[in-house]
Amino acid sequence: MPVRNIRLTVAYDGTDFAGWQVQKEQRTVQGVIEEALARMHGHSVRIRGAGRTDTGVHATGQVANFHSDLDSIAPARWSLAVNSYLPPDVRVLESREAEPGFSAKESARLRVYAYYLLAAQIGPPHVRRYCWKIPRRPEVPALNRLAAVFLGEHDFTTFAAAGDASRSKIRRVLSSCFYPQGPFLLYRIAATSFVWKMVRSVLGTMLEYEAAGRGAAELAQALAARDRNQAGTSAPARGLFLERVVYDGEELFPL
Amino acid sequence: MPVRNIRLTVAYDGTDFAGWQVQKEQRTVQGVIEEALARMHGHSVRIRGAGRTDTGVHATGQVANFHSDLDSIAPARWSLAVNSYLPPDVRVLESREAEPGFSAKESARLRVYAYYLLAAQIGPPHVRRYCWKIPRRPEVPALNRLAAVFLGEHDFTTFAAAGDASRSKIRRVLSSCFYPQGPFLLYRIAATSFVWKMVRSVLGTMLEYEAAGRGAAELAQALAARDRNQAGTSAPARGLFLERVVYDGEELFPL
Repeated sequence: MPVRNIRLTVAYDGTDFAGWQVQKEQRTVQGVIEEALARMHGHSVRIRGAGRTDTGVHATGQVANFHSDLDSIAPARWSLAVNSYLPPDVRVLESREAEPGFSAKESARLRVYAYYLLAAQIGPPHVRRYCWKIPRRPEVPALNRLAAVFLGEHDFTTFAAAGDASRSKIRRVLSSCFYPQGPFLLYRIAATSFVWKMVRSVLGTMLEYEAAGRGAAELAQALAARDRNQAGTSAPARGLFLERVVYDGEELFPL
Repeated sequence: MPVRNIRLTVAYDGTDFAGWQVQKEQRTVQGVIEEALARMHGHSVRIRGAGRTDTGVHATGQVANFHSDLDSIAPARWSLAVNSYLPPDVRVLESREAEPGFSAKESARLRVYAYYLLAAQIGPPHVRRYCWKIPRRPEVPALNRLAAVFLGEHDFTTFAAAGDASRSKIRRVLSSCFYPQGPFLLYRIAATSFVWKMVRSVLGTMLEYEAAGRGAAELAQALAARDRNQAGTSAPARGLFLERVVYDGEELFPL
């Protein structure tokens, strides 16, 4: 029986999930997708995602892959087939067949995260799960001078959570920028990969620097210090979205 | 003790409410606000809203008013005060003192509703509570020719739900238009008032006409027929928002 490598693009509302990765007795995105695949296959199927998003973090463009011996479903139809077994807070947006060696995690060249801030005293309840409400509108040019500090290759020890298991904390950031979007302020960062909880730490720190009038030179020192005590308070999970994962041969831009 | 007439602008996520109006043993928006006010006042307080939105319908600009003998709270601080007693799916966006004779319901000159459609086979889960997903992108010019049929003063019996209690079904529509907004299609309609479930009926009918290639002349006949059997299937509640209520002396435009 031919085994196909199926690649999925997955969106989820992270609010009611304990993150992507399977954990015992927790509702996780990987868990509900593997449950759906097990029901379809009649045996357990492992799926691997490009980004291990944390509790409460969302995705509009997570990528995942699994190997299937079910050849009754055409690759492009897997999205609809899996969706019919999934709860409404996870949707497979697209499916296709990938090369045998493709791994959503290992083959990824770039991960793009977006974080939504809403500067308002009182926010409409419809966005409460999907952004972080901050009381004051920060100065965007000042924020963008801070955001540029992270561009290029750096050791991100300062912005790695305590439990980060990676040996090297060196990561390459290709873009880091704030974009005003109506009442929202979007921060987008693209990197080869991220140390654990890096985006929330980097963002929380930049907001503290902006509020205190501290500049890019000081932030660059904090980054160079490789000292977790130099990071500010992390931004909450609910504003964070894994937006896109880029693979070899795919367009890098727009980031 | 001086009694103040307090006017609130209220936003709510209608998903988990049985509509605005108080009903026995149902969770309603009016109910949770009156509960909050009762806790603040130590006695029951009646609040009246401009629009009696149905189960699952949202608001970003509902207006309501109540009379209060609590003079320890400045009118502009009522928003923050009430919010501290409200669940996260209702927010008072703004508060102020109104003229003694002001009634959010009776003084309203215009109500503006917005309806969000998403034309997609599969939609991201983050908007699932706030729009109606339709499989095909309709022709916007054709829809706007249909939408113009409702402009002006008409008897809306054709588009009134069976339980509508109003004696006259004559309503004046000031604007009725579709606006493409990225992957969404927004329908906005402004009228002095609406017959029961009118927006959802009008919208569902227009989409059926567009799909069938039926034109404005035929729709005008259905409207003139004053016959509920000529209306199409109503659009679901989740895409509908009470966006704004306009009072004497306030800007009518943009509608």
